[in-house]
Amino acid sequence: MANKKLILDLDTGVDDAMAIAYAVAAPNADLVGIVSSYGNVVVEQAAKNSLKILELLGATDVPVYIGESHSEMTDHFDVMPVSAHIHGKNGIGEVDLPEPQRKPEKESGVDFFIEAARKWGKDLTIIPTGPLTNLAAALKKDPEIADLIGNVTLMGGALTVPGNVTPFAEANIQQDAEAANYVFTNKLHDTMVGLDVTLRTLLTKKETQQWRDLGTAAGEKFADIVDYYINIYDEMYPELGGCSLHDPLAVGIACDPSFATTLDIDMVVNSDKEKYGRTIGDTARLSDANPSVSVAIQVEKDRYLATFMEYLTTLFKNNK
Amino acid sequence: MANKKLILDLDTGVDDAMAIAYAVAAPNADLVGIVSSYGNVVVEQAAKNSLKILELLGATDVPVYIGESHSEMTDHFDVMPVSAHIHGKNGIGEVDLPEPQRKPEKESGVDFFIEAARKWGKDLTIIPTGPLTNLAAALKKDPEIADLIGNVTLMGGALTVPGNVTPFAEANIQQDAEAANYVFTNKLHDTMVGLDVTLRTLLTKKETQQWRDLGTAAGEKFADIVDYYINIYDEMYPELGGCSLHDPLAVGIACDPSFATTLDIDMVVNSDKEKYGRTIGDTARLSDANPSVSVAIQVEKDRYLATFMEYLTTLFKNNK
Repeated sequence: MANKKLILDLDTGVDDAMAIAYAVAAPNADLVGIVSSYGNVVVEQAAKNSLKILELLGATDVPVYIGESHSEMTDHFDVMPVSAHIHGKNGIGEVDLPEPQRKPEKESGVDFFIEAARKWGKDLTIIPTGPLTNLAAALKKDPEIADLIGNVTLMGGALTVPGNVTPFAEANIQQDAEAANYVFTNKLHDTMVGLDVTLRTLLTKKETQQWRDLGTAAGEKFADIVDYYINIYDEMYPELGGCSLHDPLAVGIACDPSFATTLDIDMVVNSDKEKYGRTIGDTARLSDANPSVSVAIQVEKDRYLATFMEYLTTLFKNNK
Repeated sequence: MANKKLILDLDTGVDDAMAIAYAVAAPNADLVGIVSSYGNVVVEQAAKNSLKILELLGATDVPVYIGESHSEMTDHFDVMPVSAHIHGKNGIGEVDLPEPQRKPEKESGVDFFIEAARKWGKDLTIIPTGPLTNLAAALKKDPEIADLIGNVTLMGGALTVPGNVTPFAEANIQQDAEAANYVFTNKLHDTMVGLDVTLRTLLTKKETQQWRDLGTAAGEKFADIVDYYINIYDEMYPELGGCSLHDPLAVGIACDPSFATTLDIDMVVNSDKEKYGRTIGDTARLSDANPSVSVAIQVEKDRYLATFMEYLTTLFKNNK
C-alpha cells in the first residue's frame, strides 16, 4: 500500500510542533506540506514556526503555505491571552530557534489543498489542528474536492466532555464555528480527535528528559519547548498530571486509526451565542445511514505514547 | 442463571406503560416491583397508572410503591404543560382504563429499594425511567446498598446529542439534576440509556395496528394509548418518523445489554443555572480505571424492535 500523503494545517504552537515531528517520523506516511492557520499564534508566526521546526528536524523538503488570517465572520484575528500563556508569545514555549532559511510558498494554503486533493485523491489525509477556516474555504472554492480527499482527521471539538474555552466549546472550533459546521456537515468524511481523547493522552517530564539526554539539538530544543508547556499544564490543569498531546494524537490516529475507538455520528457545530462552538450529534440525522463524522471516544493511550516516543526519540537522535 | 429481578421506577406516562409491558413479558426477568415517581404525572397518578396497566396485563402480583413526590431541592412538583401534552393529562394518552382493584403498598418506594437491595443483591437491576430522586434518597438513607445492587439501567440524559427540554438537558435529569449527580458520581454502576439511543428507536402505527388487530383488550388499549403518543410525536418531531421507545428501551438493555454499544466514562450532572441537567464526562476523572457509568451510544434498533414486538404482541394476545 502506498504511504499516506499528509497535509498538516497548523496554528503552530507547542503541540503543533510535536505534530510536525510525528508526521516527519511516521514510517507509513509522507508529509507533503504544511498549511498555516491562525489560533495559538497569528498565521505568519505559525508559518515561521513550522519552518523553524522543519529545519530543526532536517525536513527542509516540506513546503509551508500561508492560509487564511482570520475567520470569514471576522475582519481580523488577535491571539487570546490564554493562548499566548499556554504556548508562549512566540508559540513555541519562548524557545529561540534560528531564523528559518526558507520562506513560505507563494501559492495560498487554500489553493494547495485543492491542488493536493486533485493530485493525491484518496491517498490524501488532511490534518487540521487549528480552526477549520482553510479547509472550509477550499471546499467552498472547489466543492468537487469533497469527493476526492481520502480523509480529514482533525484535532478539535469535544463530544463527551466539556469544552476548554467555554463549558461547550473547544478552542479550535470556537475560533470559527461556522467553518467547522461547514466541514462537519459536508459529505467529506471527518475523523474528530477532540478533548474526549486528547485529555487522556499525556506527556510528562519523564519523557522529555529522554529527549534531553540524547544530547542533540533537536532533542534539547524539543525538551525545552515541551517543558514550557508541561509547566503551564501543571499550573492550569494539575489534575491531569502532564500535558495533553492534542495535535500529535490527531496525526497518530490519521496514520493508524486503530489507536482510537470511534463513534460514527452526523454532527453539527452550534453557532448561536449561548452555545457557540459546541460540537454535538444532529438529532435530525440520527437514523441516516453512513454518518459523515467518526468521533474518537476512546484511545489506546499506552500504545500510542510508546509509538509517539519511539518515533520522536529516533528522529531527534538523528538531528544533531 | 437465575432470572434478573427488575424494579421499575416510573413516572407512568405512555412509554413507561410500554416499559411495564416489556418487563412483564421478558422471559429472562422477573418484575418484582414498581416504585412510583413524579415527572410525566404527579406521583399518585403514576402509581395509579402503573396499577391500571398491570391489571390490564394480568400482572396483579407485582406490588406498586409510592416514591418521593418532588426533588429534595423543591417543596412541590407541578407537571410541565409539555409533559401533559405529550402523555395526555392522565399520563396514558387520555385513554380510560378501569379504576384499579389494588392499591399501592404501605411501605415507601425508598424503603422498598433498600429492602430489595438486601434481599436480591447482585441479581437486582433497578430501572429508573423518571427523575433519580428515589434512588438518590435510598442511597443516602442506606449507603451500603451501593455495593449490593447489581446494576442500575436508567432512561435519562443525553451525551452525544442535545437535550429535549433545553439544549443541554434531557427531561428526566432536568427534574432533579442534584439527585442525578448523586447517583452518577456514586460508586454504584449505572448504565445510561439516554436520547443518544432512544431517539433512534422508533415505533409507528404500523406496529400498533398489529396490536389492535389482536382484538384483545390489552392490544386495543395499548394501541389507543401509544397512537396518542405517536400523534404528538408526528406533530412535535416530524423528522423522526415515529415515537421514541425511551423507557422500554432501558428495560430491553437491562434484560439484554448486547442491544447497546456503550462508552464507559465517569460522568457528572451539572446543576448550575447555565447548563442545569447536562450529563457530561468528568474531565478530572478521565484517566481513572473502572468508570462508574456505561453510556449507551449505539443500539441495534432493528433487533430490539423485533424483540419488543415479539414480547408485547404475545403478551397482549394472552390478555383478553
